[in-house]
Amino acid sequence: MNDHSNDTRLPRVADIEDAARLLQPHAVYTPLLESPRLNEELGARVLFKAEPLQRTGSFKFRGAFTAISRIASAQRAAGIIAFSSGNHAQGVAYSARLLDIPAVIVMPSTAPRVKIDNTRAYGAEVVLYDPTREDRETIGRRLASERGFTLVRPYDDFDVICGQGTIGLEIADQADALRTRIDTLLCPCGGGGLVGGIATALHARSPGTRVYSVEPEGFDDTRRSLLSGRRERNATGGESICDALLAPTPGALTFAVNRDALAGGLVASDTEAMTAMHRAFNDLKLVLEPGGAVALAAVLAGRFDVRGRTAVVVCSGGNVDPEFFARCLVHD
Amino acid sequence: MNDHSNDTRLPRVADIEDAARLLQPHAVYTPLLESPRLNEELGARVLFKAEPLQRTGSFKFRGAFTAISRIASAQRAAGIIAFSSGNHAQGVAYSARLLDIPAVIVMPSTAPRVKIDNTRAYGAEVVLYDPTREDRETIGRRLASERGFTLVRPYDDFDVICGQGTIGLEIADQADALRTRIDTLLCPCGGGGLVGGIATALHARSPGTRVYSVEPEGFDDTRRSLLSGRRERNATGGESICDALLAPTPGALTFAVNRDALAGGLVASDTEAMTAMHRAFNDLKLVLEPGGAVALAAVLAGRFDVRGRTAVVVCSGGNVDPEFFARCLVHD
Repeated sequence: MNDHSNDTRLPRVADIEDAARLLQPHAVYTPLLESPRLNEELGARVLFKAEPLQRTGSFKFRGAFTAISRIASAQRAAGIIAFSSGNHAQGVAYSARLLDIPAVIVMPSTAPRVKIDNTRAYGAEVVLYDPTREDRETIGRRLASERGFTLVRPYDDFDVICGQGTIGLEIADQADALRTRIDTLLCPCGGGGLVGGIATALHARSPGTRVYSVEPEGFDDTRRSLLSGRRERNATGGESICDALLAPTPGALTFAVNRDALAGGLVASDTEAMTAMHRAFNDLKLVLEPGGAVALAAVLAGRFDVRGRTAVVVCSGGNVDPEFFARCLVHD
Repeated sequence: MNDHSNDTRLPRVADIEDAARLLQPHAVYTPLLESPRLNEELGARVLFKAEPLQRTGSFKFRGAFTAISRIASAQRAAGIIAFSSGNHAQGVAYSARLLDIPAVIVMPSTAPRVKIDNTRAYGAEVVLYDPTREDRETIGRRLASERGFTLVRPYDDFDVICGQGTIGLEIADQADALRTRIDTLLCPCGGGGLVGGIATALHARSPGTRVYSVEPEGFDDTRRSLLSGRRERNATGGESICDALLAPTPGALTFAVNRDALAGGLVASDTEAMTAMHRAFNDLKLVLEPGGAVALAAVLAGRFDVRGRTAVVVCSGGNVDPEFFARCLVHD
């Protein structure tokens, strides 16, 4: 299988600016929302970067489109392949469609139904596997060797990190327009591409902003890696409703970025994520999926004290099955 | 009771531009969302003006703030009063707080709980009445004569129409930025202030756009009034889940505007509104209340054929109780 890229350089802000130019005609410049009630309750100014309003319902479109656009034309015809529980899947499928490239997405059969349905609706071929019995790498390697696909990795990829980093450029510009300075940013973290890209952009454009990753309890590999200085792994067998954030270990490239760029790592529990989904429904009118809500969850649960601060909370995605969302609305 | 305004002029675009300058530091410039999947399904380009993301969760803040800002300072100290099932209530309460004016809001005890709770949370004094046994006008007159309040009407008011019309200015600018022309706009309609303000703005700024009101079935007074040429009333005793759109008859001023400004009137059923709420959840990641969803509902139900068009659908509010929203997600 061809890798889309073996670029091991650390992305710089100029690389993210290149990605922003590439994305500009296609991606949504997502709004920075604010709730006077949440501000009052938290004793802070909290601004919410609303990536559920992005194409495909999550930030993943930014990185996927950036990476796929840069596949050499000779490789394009054979198509691309991705492994994903859902948001990267949709980002890749929709990008491939815009660029008229065939796409195969290997997804666990346990992924939220809405993510599987949407990926198919964007025109990709979806191959489901049973994550308790099969290994997606084996399936992927077989498909790739048979059909010559190029792999689009979900986070540990130079171009993907640059695409996600465009969120940081937008936040810096939006803060300027509000004539405010962001002192803190909290961001959901799976493999670390989103938070790494944003931190890289803000390091250049808003150097006073301290950036924190937020992970689900039991999947805090980035938090622990930041403390130990080496890539830690999560214990196997853990479970979380935050299906988008279950990467087993930080990426090699993302950790090389995040080791220096992040101020620290936080966690949020599943229950806290459900409460945050309910609050986003009520106070932001925004649909969040569990993994997209963990940064808000950490703030609401008091795991990070924002009092007196001007903070950005990244809301990274909103692809959630309606039955599960309904349960969150009657929860607590 | 003092009326905030007895201005019976028809608003012009310059008046709406004045309101836009007044609102600019306080109101959200709401995004125009788009779903590639809905576009494909409808065979059209459909752009969604996302007013649930407005302060207080609906467009009503725009008109309320505009009207209250213009109350003479001598009158302000005594405070303001409003009658509302909820969105105007919240808009008035939050505006009064920003402007440091006491506010009393008379609300039916049957209003959605979230609307009552939010109105109180913005600091207003809420007076509940039983709409099956009491007359809100009588309650209001008593409170006003006792305490000298100024009434802020929900729609039949020059300044309120100008405030809501700022949405039309934004849509015209957003269409220019997308380098597109809007041929059709569909807008939820209760008393007619929102659709009238938007139509006035677009008549000047996008004269090729045909503007339609959308009302709940059984509350189609504006549709019937447009056909007959005089202000028709709804039959009493009707029911709808669209609590925000139950005005009994068009306003005198709003109908004077809408008679000439609208291309026609449409309706949507409660079931269609629930389906539209579900689709907005899935494809826009936006929380809509029933009344905020009727324009989308009319399009999805095929009551207006948008095929081949570039249409704006106004999503006017998202203040809905979580238990009811959860029911809409498991519906159909």
